[in-house]
Amino acid sequence: MSSSITQNPLYYLINPRGIAFFGASNNFINMGTMILNSVLNMGYEGQIYPIHPKESTVLGLTAYTAIDQTPQAPDLAILVLPTKIVGDVLEQCGRRGVKNAVVVSGGFQESGPEGAAMQERLMRIAEQYGMRFLGPNCLGVANPHCKINTTPLPYECGPGFIGLASQSGSFVTQMYDQLRRLSLGFSTALSVGNEANVDLVDCLEYLGDDPHTKVIGMYVETIRRGRRFVEVARRVALKKPIVAFYVGGSETGRRAALSHTGALAGPDKLYDGILRQAGVIRAQTITELFDFCWALGSLPLPAGPNAVIQTDSGGPGAAAADACERSGLKLPPLGPSTIELLRPLVPHTGSLGNPVDITFPREFRNYYWDIPDALLRDENIHALLIYFVLPVELIYPSIAAQGLPVSEAKRQAVELVSGLLDQTRSLIDVHGKPVVGYSFNSLEQEPLRGLIARGMPVLSSPQRAARAVAAMSQYARLRQKLIAQGQTA
Amino acid sequence: MSSSITQNPLYYLINPRGIAFFGASNNFINMGTMILNSVLNMGYEGQIYPIHPKESTVLGLTAYTAIDQTPQAPDLAILVLPTKIVGDVLEQCGRRGVKNAVVVSGGFQESGPEGAAMQERLMRIAEQYGMRFLGPNCLGVANPHCKINTTPLPYECGPGFIGLASQSGSFVTQMYDQLRRLSLGFSTALSVGNEANVDLVDCLEYLGDDPHTKVIGMYVETIRRGRRFVEVARRVALKKPIVAFYVGGSETGRRAALSHTGALAGPDKLYDGILRQAGVIRAQTITELFDFCWALGSLPLPAGPNAVIQTDSGGPGAAAADACERSGLKLPPLGPSTIELLRPLVPHTGSLGNPVDITFPREFRNYYWDIPDALLRDENIHALLIYFVLPVELIYPSIAAQGLPVSEAKRQAVELVSGLLDQTRSLIDVHGKPVVGYSFNSLEQEPLRGLIARGMPVLSSPQRAARAVAAMSQYARLRQKLIAQGQTA
Repeated sequence: MSSSITQNPLYYLINPRGIAFFGASNNFINMGTMILNSVLNMGYEGQIYPIHPKESTVLGLTAYTAIDQTPQAPDLAILVLPTKIVGDVLEQCGRRGVKNAVVVSGGFQESGPEGAAMQERLMRIAEQYGMRFLGPNCLGVANPHCKINTTPLPYECGPGFIGLASQSGSFVTQMYDQLRRLSLGFSTALSVGNEANVDLVDCLEYLGDDPHTKVIGMYVETIRRGRRFVEVARRVALKKPIVAFYVGGSETGRRAALSHTGALAGPDKLYDGILRQAGVIRAQTITELFDFCWALGSLPLPAGPNAVIQTDSGGPGAAAADACERSGLKLPPLGPSTIELLRPLVPHTGSLGNPVDITFPREFRNYYWDIPDALLRDENIHALLIYFVLPVELIYPSIAAQGLPVSEAKRQAVELVSGLLDQTRSLIDVHGKPVVGYSFNSLEQEPLRGLIARGMPVLSSPQRAARAVAAMSQYARLRQKLIAQGQTA
Repeated sequence: MSSSITQNPLYYLINPRGIAFFGASNNFINMGTMILNSVLNMGYEGQIYPIHPKESTVLGLTAYTAIDQTPQAPDLAILVLPTKIVGDVLEQCGRRGVKNAVVVSGGFQESGPEGAAMQERLMRIAEQYGMRFLGPNCLGVANPHCKINTTPLPYECGPGFIGLASQSGSFVTQMYDQLRRLSLGFSTALSVGNEANVDLVDCLEYLGDDPHTKVIGMYVETIRRGRRFVEVARRVALKKPIVAFYVGGSETGRRAALSHTGALAGPDKLYDGILRQAGVIRAQTITELFDFCWALGSLPLPAGPNAVIQTDSGGPGAAAADACERSGLKLPPLGPSTIELLRPLVPHTGSLGNPVDITFPREFRNYYWDIPDALLRDENIHALLIYFVLPVELIYPSIAAQGLPVSEAKRQAVELVSGLLDQTRSLIDVHGKPVVGYSFNSLEQEPLRGLIARGMPVLSSPQRAARAVAAMSQYARLRQKLIAQGQTA
């Protein structure tokens, strides 16, 4: 851990050495209990003090009747309480010297004037006692590095490289399943709720300094401190990419955001301008937000906009070419020496254009190593998109034809493919260029799962692959521009 | 089978009573052998005559040295042969009285002038002998109703309702896995290749008449007979929806299409106009093509553009609202009587706006039946989008809390959910309105898999769900317009 991150004002909120928990009981059908369970299941190693008026233990932990009864003041209080008592409890925490809180409870700003007044009180208390808190109306923190998860859903991914700052708690928890399936994880995910005390900008500063975070994703319904956001984002963007999905640009999106976190979202074009100025890559959907983070966090940046598409099938090649052009990538013709390398590897029914259409590879090794290796040697090519079909189905009959039973042939095919995938994955490091796969097959089956587990992004459509590579190219340009403008980190 | 479909000129090409197969051997690493294997694995019940110069049996079937040696002339010849001998073999088939062919072999129009001349010859032979053929450079037919599959990949879906006409063979075979995972299937899928004799328009006419086809998908790189396409499509669109993905509108897409099927694609705007005039819904990606077909083929049409979003989470609600508006759907406020029905079902932290945000449902039954039922009763609402999280994870702890072991609690939770899903699915028939789910969880896990298996589309993002419902609304309007214009089927 670098020294700078421990000095960040949110450090002990996100990496607490001890926790007081308000609102858990021994009743499992209860949001507070579910959240305390998440903290326990994550394997949190610090001290936890459940605060409960009547129970002597909660989920097996010694409980205390009030925060002033605990042996010491922990770094963090988690509040999952009825709206009306949140203020008093926060004040008790402040008096006790607890410096950080996660206020999960809702019913504040987002519920109307009465809730807004209660939220004002939380803000005054925090100021009086020098506290920082996430929320209210949030799900708080998931930080696998500190083994803390204050959300009600189990975090079953490993520690990852994606930092998330989200104005939706759901977009933290709902991504766990997807990230796990892709062998990805959060470095730290933060749900900011109504942002009464800690806002997106604070989170951006934290994630910018966090050494575990290689790329920052943001779900944005509103930006409350525009100027400061731009300042911080430009500084962070020099070090690592920031990707944002903005919802609220449409009239109905705006209304939905208002009832969600009490945020007043602005027109789409305005936000487009702010994000551009801030050096933030804009994703058009939540799916894209994570696609972009995946590619940007796991691949070297392309040195330019020139991509090549490798396919064994015309349709998926043409669809990718169309998507590349619409995304602003270029598909230059291959250089003469590349064509010489390819000629013996591509049958006469194929095409040595761009897309390179192999039709039917002579050997599987050609498709997984020799051809992409030749393409990446081309100095004029900055990125490679490869279309993948499930080769296991195509390989095992040829092994079975040697007289082996089908089950043994399938096993050998998987083994053969596994070796090929190691080679394919190594292309990224060998050439220092991004390689993104795409396929219509299930990413949960071999060999795509294997390729993904080895660290190569494989996306479920040519368009998603093209857009992800374009986002990388966009970030590379942006970073150059920030440097040219003399931006400092 | 209606009488009209058997009179369609392509009927015995797509539903052959017997097949001659050229190009299969007993060597498994061979495209011809793989395709003959596909035909056999599909369970084709007619006679198959492999033609082979030397072998006496091929894959266990009696082989013949030439087509004039077979006991009778079958309906269909499948040719997977070196380019240069295709013409002679097609001519032999014509002389023998074989009236239909699938020419898988490539190396024709798409390969340059020499190939183009050979393709011309195929066209002349077909004319001379009154033959119809798919290809060259195609994968032919997958028709589970006749148990025929002339593509090299195994078709493991059941018979379905999606008819596909594709200028890419890959977009036939590469969808098998996806369709199977979604409990979907093709009614008939046709890969047209270079369209020397049978083109997209012929396929459209066939699929329009085919009683198994409820919705038609098209992958289009070029339309060769524009005027006829518009005529046929308008007639078909009156009976069933047609959805097309057009690639080739961009410069690079155009070049890729040229090298793929020798097609000269036109500018994007031109095709946009043709498709609109033809009454065809345009999908922006391959993913959308199948999303739209799924929704249009399995749900009643919405009577208007008004949708309601049901969510238990603000972010996914706001993202869906934004996507709905961008897709042209309306999100009207709920009627007073709907709000009365909902009030006891939605906690005070929730919202009775549109999106309806339940935050945390009091009972799971409320989320799966009572609330959507109330929403669909609203006369001003034409379609419902529901956000689904995985409830099994949330349900079993509450069952386990009654003292049951976790495995038993999980089993009971699955059973409970299964009953709920039956109810949720029944909403579509009870109200005669479309209901589309969306989620970020894996569609291959319960309960989403169960919901999908019961016939409710669940899409992997709010945007995809909104776009699918918008496509349904677009088709409903379009159909009204065709009727108003006096279009006849």
